[in-house]
Amino acid sequence: MPAEQRLQELGLVLPAPLQLPPGVRLPFVPVRIVGRRVAVSGHGPLDVHGNLAGPFGKVGADVTPEQAHEAARLTLLAILADLKVALGSLDRISAWCKLLGMVNAAPGFSAMPQVINGASDLILDIFGPDIGAHARSAIGVAELPWNIPVEIEAEVEIN
Amino acid sequence: MPAEQRLQELGLVLPAPLQLPPGVRLPFVPVRIVGRRVAVSGHGPLDVHGNLAGPFGKVGADVTPEQAHEAARLTLLAILADLKVALGSLDRISAWCKLLGMVNAAPGFSAMPQVINGASDLILDIFGPDIGAHARSAIGVAELPWNIPVEIEAEVEIN
Amino acid sequence: MPAEQRLQELGLVLPAPLQLPPGVRLPFVPVRIVGRRVAVSGHGPLDVHGNLAGPFGKVGADVTPEQAHEAARLTLLAILADLKVALGSLDRISAWCKLLGMVNAAPGFSAMPQVINGASDLILDIFGPDIGAHARSAIGVAELPWNIPVEIEAEVEIN
Repeated sequence: MPAEQRLQELGLVLPAPLQLPPGVRLPFVPVRIVGRRVAVSGHGPLDVHGNLAGPFGKVGADVTPEQAHEAARLTLLAILADLKVALGSLDRISAWCKLLGMVNAAPGFSAMPQVINGASDLILDIFGPDIGAHARSAIGVAELPWNIPVEIEAEVEIN
Repeated sequence: MPAEQRLQELGLVLPAPLQLPPGVRLPFVPVRIVGRRVAVSGHGPLDVHGNLAGPFGKVGADVTPEQAHEAARLTLLAILADLKVALGSLDRISAWCKLLGMVNAAPGFSAMPQVINGASDLILDIFGPDIGAHARSAIGVAELPWNIPVEIEAEVEIN
Repeated sequence: MPAEQRLQELGLVLPAPLQLPPGVRLPFVPVRIVGRRVAVSGHGPLDVHGNLAGPFGKVGADVTPEQAHEAARLTLLAILADLKVALGSLDRISAWCKLLGMVNAAPGFSAMPQVINGASDLILDIFGPDIGAHARSAIGVAELPWNIPVEIEAEVEIN
């Protein structure tokens, strides 16, 4: 089933574009197309209106693993929203290549893979095992912009 | 000398595939082939049976720089094992492109380059300076899955 | 305007190649060309002689955000210097693809985007909005080599 159709079947709503916090300027593009390669900038979790979605803070302290898993899912929806704007249709994606999942980890929290599974599972659910298969790294970083719990960057290929 | 022959000459043994810790699910692939590009997921050090290899913890505190250097070497062998499964033969690799070396750094430990040299030197030893040349970043991260001391992701090109 | 001409117009001077601190060996290349893809290793800020440029330490504690912004700018100049050596001319760059900006963040410092803007703005100023557009992630890491405040890796495409 094509990704766009599957997205509808799942009843998923893509968020509006990121509403920047006041005074912030981001001089780069959310999606960069170079030939068939598509580089996706680091994204964070958004609500449907495009505002950064809480809870904010360190996973394992301020944010539970379950909340962080949901944040990874919302982050992937934000990535899909920007890919759809840039590509016109998600059905142009012929292969997911890789994800880099960065978790705002409290000291001693090491369950980054389970958190980022929220994004990987959604890719596989929407795109299936052939197009959706991807390489991945999941790491715990010291700080993330605006204290978001999860940031994910990605690379896909288009036809 | 072809990489497979050099590997034998060096007497190196590639580990078995990763044996996941109980209850863990990783919904991504260790190696993703997209055209001639091959993205390698973040790997950690394995013993020959495919179990995560200790010592575990922060480099500069729980793990010495020398042990971390050996962990980087073991991590590269784990990457080669998965590349061999995915490609059939390591001799299909026409170029190493890049490594991202992530060290589970104790506060104040900044000798990440010396640690990740354990992987870079092994690439050059096996593949030689033309195929083996690669770009690299080496950084200290806050936490890594299962408290491994080193995680490395890579990208190579195939014929 | 071609990038080399714009660089001259801006009066910018590219630094000499990195002078390694004593006893350090880096067995990788600063720039790896694979077909039309060019992977740029993690770079830090340099002075014109190629020495690592201070101030060193954690951004938000030892290093101010303004100093870190300048360090990101110097880091981009170091990247351009190595690209020029590898490519012969910066005018061969047909597209910037992506930046990964890593900030040596003090606990609680989360203004990584504003810091890395020092590099992104300079790319756009020199290469313009078509060639210079890029995807980007900006994260706070736990430690960086030699305690530099900023490390940036990049990928560009050439004709």
